[in-house]
Amino acid sequence: MIAKRMLKYVEGSSVTRAMFEEGKRLAALYGAENVFDFSLGNPSVEPPEAVKEAILMVLDEVHPGKVHGYMNNAGHEEVRDAIAKSLNRKFGTDFNEMNIIMTVGAAGGLNVILKTILDVGDEVIAFAPYFGEYNNYVANFDGTMVVVPPNIPSFQPDLERFAEKITARTKAVIVNTPNNPTGVVYSKETIRKMAGILEDKQKEFGTDIYLIADEPYRELAYDGVEVPYLTKYYNNTIVGYSYSKSLSLPGERIGYLVIPKEVDDFDNLVNAATIATRILGFVNAPSLQQLAVAECLDETTDIAAYDANRKLLYHKLTELGFECTKPEGAFYMWVKALGDDDSAFVAKAKEFNLLLVPGSAFMCPGYVRIAYCVEEGMLKRSFGAFEKLAQSYGI
Amino acid sequence: MIAKRMLKYVEGSSVTRAMFEEGKRLAALYGAENVFDFSLGNPSVEPPEAVKEAILMVLDEVHPGKVHGYMNNAGHEEVRDAIAKSLNRKFGTDFNEMNIIMTVGAAGGLNVILKTILDVGDEVIAFAPYFGEYNNYVANFDGTMVVVPPNIPSFQPDLERFAEKITARTKAVIVNTPNNPTGVVYSKETIRKMAGILEDKQKEFGTDIYLIADEPYRELAYDGVEVPYLTKYYNNTIVGYSYSKSLSLPGERIGYLVIPKEVDDFDNLVNAATIATRILGFVNAPSLQQLAVAECLDETTDIAAYDANRKLLYHKLTELGFECTKPEGAFYMWVKALGDDDSAFVAKAKEFNLLLVPGSAFMCPGYVRIAYCVEEGMLKRSFGAFEKLAQSYGI
Repeated sequence: MIAKRMLKYVEGSSVTRAMFEEGKRLAALYGAENVFDFSLGNPSVEPPEAVKEAILMVLDEVHPGKVHGYMNNAGHEEVRDAIAKSLNRKFGTDFNEMNIIMTVGAAGGLNVILKTILDVGDEVIAFAPYFGEYNNYVANFDGTMVVVPPNIPSFQPDLERFAEKITARTKAVIVNTPNNPTGVVYSKETIRKMAGILEDKQKEFGTDIYLIADEPYRELAYDGVEVPYLTKYYNNTIVGYSYSKSLSLPGERIGYLVIPKEVDDFDNLVNAATIATRILGFVNAPSLQQLAVAECLDETTDIAAYDANRKLLYHKLTELGFECTKPEGAFYMWVKALGDDDSAFVAKAKEFNLLLVPGSAFMCPGYVRIAYCVEEGMLKRSFGAFEKLAQSYGI
Repeated sequence: MIAKRMLKYVEGSSVTRAMFEEGKRLAALYGAENVFDFSLGNPSVEPPEAVKEAILMVLDEVHPGKVHGYMNNAGHEEVRDAIAKSLNRKFGTDFNEMNIIMTVGAAGGLNVILKTILDVGDEVIAFAPYFGEYNNYVANFDGTMVVVPPNIPSFQPDLERFAEKITARTKAVIVNTPNNPTGVVYSKETIRKMAGILEDKQKEFGTDIYLIADEPYRELAYDGVEVPYLTKYYNNTIVGYSYSKSLSLPGERIGYLVIPKEVDDFDNLVNAATIATRILGFVNAPSLQQLAVAECLDETTDIAAYDANRKLLYHKLTELGFECTKPEGAFYMWVKALGDDDSAFVAKAKEFNLLLVPGSAFMCPGYVRIAYCVEEGMLKRSFGAFEKLAQSYGI
C-alpha cells in the first residue's frame, strides 16, 4: 500500500503531465504533424552551441575526479563565485559565493528553501494564477498555501487583497515574474509597493516574511521590458533560478538559489539550506552541468523564435476573437476560455487536436494556457484548428 | 528565522561533512600530503574511460532537444529498458522499463520511495550500524526510525532482535549490502531468513512490509563473494541503486529505483513514485547522465585499487593491534575505537592528522569508520600516523 496521503496525487495526477502523455497518444493515432501540443514548457529552441563547447572543454581540461566527484553540498565554489560576479555585473548587486547555493533546477531550489523556513502550519502566499506545483512544494513541508485571487484582466498582483491575506503565520510569498502562466512581468512600481506592504506587515506582526522570487523566465522578456531584480527592493528576498529555459536545459536539473547577506538570519539560512540540499536527497546539483553553465553565464537562448511565435499567435487569436493577455515575457499565452468552463474548453480543443492546459491547474478557472515554445511550422499548422475551435463556439 | 525543526540540523550538522571541511583546513595548515583524510566515501578511482566516450557520443549523435530536454518524470524509456535488460542478464530477473524509475542518485531514490509509502508515524527499521542519513530521510516524511542494535562482532543483521522490532506500524526495512560502514555482505542464508521473518510478520499483522535494498556498493565486492539480488528472495523488495561508486560519478546524482511487478500495490507504487519524483522537486534524473550511463551498463570501476588498499590497511591495522571487521565489500574499514569512546578516539586520531568518522554517526558508538577509497600513496604515508595513534593508547 502506498501512503494514504499520496492517493490524492495518484488520483488527480498532474493535468499538465497527463496532457503530455495524451499528446504522445494522439500523435501515434493521427501523426505527430497533425497534433498541436501546447501543453508543456519544454523549450523548442536548442541550447546555445556554447553549452556543448563548455561540456567538451570541461571533459578535456578538468580532472575527472573533480568533474564527476562530490563537492560541498552548496556546489563548486568557483562556479558559485562566477555566478555571483555575473549577477553583480548585470544587476549591480554585491554577492559572493557565500550567497549562492547550486540546486537541482528551480524546483529543487524551491523545495530546499521551503524545507529551510517552514514549520507546520506556516503560511505561504502566491498570486493566482500560479504554477500549480507550488501547492505540492508547500505541502511537502506542512505549510499552508494562501491564494491571492487573480487581478482580472491585468493579472498584475492584486496588492490590496495581498495585504489582507498577510497574517502572523505568513512565512513567505512566492512571486514568479515573468509569469507562468500569464506572461505578465511585474513592474518596478508593483515591486516597490509589494515591498512596502511586506515591510509594514513585518513591523506590524514582528515577524520576518521572505519574498521568494521564482525566476526561470528572467531572460525571456520581449520588447525591451525590464524585469526588476527583487533583492534590490526588499531585504528579505531569496531568488530561485534555473537554466532550464535560459539555456534550454530543463532535463539537466541545474539552477541556483541566491540568499543575500541582507536577509534575516542569514548564517542559519545558508547553513540550513545547504543541509536541506543534502537531507532532501539532492546532495548537490549535477556536477558536470555546474561546471558547464559557469562557462555560459553570458549566453542566453535565442528568444527571437519565441518572440516570433508570440506575435504570430497573439495576432491570430485576437483576430479570431479570443481574449488574450499579451505576454511580456516567458513563452505562454493566457487566454479566456470560451464558454467560461476551462475544462470543457480544453476538452473541446482536444477534438481539434489542440492540447492546452486549463487555468484550474493554475488556481484560475475560466482561462487556458498555451505554451508557444514550439516549432513555428507547428504553430502555423495549428491555426486552422484554432479557427475551428472558435467556430465551434460560434464566434 | 529558519524553521524551528531545522535548528537541530544546523546545530548538529553532519559529522561526516564537517570532517570533510576539517580536512581542507588541516591540509591548508600542514600541507595536503601530511593530512590523511579517511572521512568521505568519495571514490578515488577515476570513472571508466567509457563514461567520457559515452557522453561525447550522446552529444554528437543525439538531438540536443532530447539530450537536455524534459522527458517522462520516470526517465528516458530506452534508458530504463536498457537497465531492465541489463539486470535481467545479470540476475535472471524479469524486469522491463515499467519497473525502473531513474533517480537523482540513491539518496534521491530513497527519498522518492519513502515519500511514496510513508504516512505519519509509520515505522522504518534499519540495522545498526547504518548510514546516518537514513534517519533524516525517514524524518522528511514523518516516519519513525526503529533501530536493530548491532550484532557484535560479525555485524551481520541480528535477526532475532529484528523479528522483535516488527510491529503493525512497520512499513519498511532498509538494508544496505555491501554495507556502509562495516563492509559486511549479507549472505544468501541471512537474506532467506530475513525474508521468512518478513513473510510471517506480514501474515501476522495483515500488513505489507517493503524491503528497501540500498545498493550503491553492489559491484564493490572482493574475493569473489556473491551479493544476493534481493528481489529474488522477497516479493515486496524495492531496490535503490546509484552509479556514484560503480562508475565513480557521485557528483552527477544518477541512479534508479527498481519496483518489481511482484510488489504489493504495484501500479499505485509506480505512479506515486513517479509523482513523488516530480513533486519533491527532482522532476527527473539529469538527462545527459541518464543517456550516458545507459551506454556503460557493463562497465564498472576498477575495484583492484580498492582491494589493494583494503588488504594493505587491514594488514597494517591488525598488525598494530586494532580490532577490524575484514570488509567483504564497499570501501570502508570498521574498527573498534581504542578506549571505547569513539568521539575521543576520533579526536585523538586528528592530533595525528588522521580524519576518521565516529561510529555514533552510524548509530553504533565504540567504533570508527575508515573510508579507504583514497590514493594508495596517501594510505601508505598514513601508516606512521596509525602507529603513533596506537602507541598513544599504549598498544
